[in-house]
Amino acid sequence: MDEQTRQDLKQRLASAAGHIKGIERMVDQDAYCIDIIRQIRAVQAALDKISTRILDNHLHTCVISAIRDDDPQQREAVLREITSVFEMAHKR
Amino acid sequence: MDEQTRQDLKQRLASAAGHIKGIERMVDQDAYCIDIIRQIRAVQAALDKISTRILDNHLHTCVISAIRDDDPQQREAVLREITSVFEMAHKR
Amino acid sequence: MDEQTRQDLKQRLASAAGHIKGIERMVDQDAYCIDIIRQIRAVQAALDKISTRILDNHLHTCVISAIRDDDPQQREAVLREITSVFEMAHKR
Amino acid sequence: MDEQTRQDLKQRLASAAGHIKGIERMVDQDAYCIDIIRQIRAVQAALDKISTRILDNHLHTCVISAIRDDDPQQREAVLREITSVFEMAHKR
Repeated sequence: MDEQTRQDLKQRLASAAGHIKGIERMVDQDAYCIDIIRQIRAVQAALDKISTRILDNHLHTCVISAIRDDDPQQREAVLREITSVFEMAHKR
Repeated sequence: MDEQTRQDLKQRLASAAGHIKGIERMVDQDAYCIDIIRQIRAVQAALDKISTRILDNHLHTCVISAIRDDDPQQREAVLREITSVFEMAHKR
Repeated sequence: MDEQTRQDLKQRLASAAGHIKGIERMVDQDAYCIDIIRQIRAVQAALDKISTRILDNHLHTCVISAIRDDDPQQREAVLREITSVFEMAHKR
Repeated sequence: MDEQTRQDLKQRLASAAGHIKGIERMVDQDAYCIDIIRQIRAVQAALDKISTRILDNHLHTCVISAIRDDDPQQREAVLREITSVFEMAHKR
């Protein structure tokens, strides 16, 4: 992972953690349930973007190397992981 | 929201925020991309449970009151919110 | 369910089934994988809308009756179903 | 796509279309809303499996070729598609 991607991801994760802290305060101050649920969705959307960014990085590094390498077992393992990440995206 | 539910929700939210902090460290230590994505999914699943818990509380309080009250406009607004929360669950 | 809602739902379901038949032909004609996946998503989005429409109808009929009725067990059952439908929307 | 995969996919798609026809009959016979929503979810889960199967096939054919080929533009296009399919899985 290049340094710029890492810094971007760390910043986005810190912001998501901060957002959740804000939601904790909403719960404490008895905010309207539906507003709290909406804020949770917003955090989840931000986490989806982070996952997509990480997958994109993974495809451009590990996946390219694994496919170019001539170890069929390693290649299979890497492709299987992509499929499993896609399945997870459905099943959450 | 009763005190027990509030404490439970705050604890779950604090734990989700802590989990994200852990993911930030994984990014910093150059953990394997797929493992990071899996941890993000785990946080999202935890947030889904929190949302469900809040919706459940909402149904048992505001929704029951709004439906029993005889203000049709207020009732409509509350039912529309449930539908919109369901739509959000699809669209994230 | 009023007649208009029923006709609308049947039409949307027939259209989704027709869409899937079209996807079957795409597979037969060796269409590009990513295009097939996109069409499947489109069907799923159409099915999400159908589910939302059915939930909306359910809220305006059964849920209102169950909450106004004074059978706490029946009311609990109906509210639990809403929560479970919301959970399903996450877990697909 | 090899012949066995194609036949398997066509059979799964035909079965999903048949399932939707069954849901249309449920709507016609005024089945319980929540049961209808559950059946729609079941179809969507079946469609998710079909998508995953197609993606798996795609990874083992087009993606491997594109990455081994030395056309960086083509490679980028194929990787971007994987990312976009992953984003769609979130956004449905």
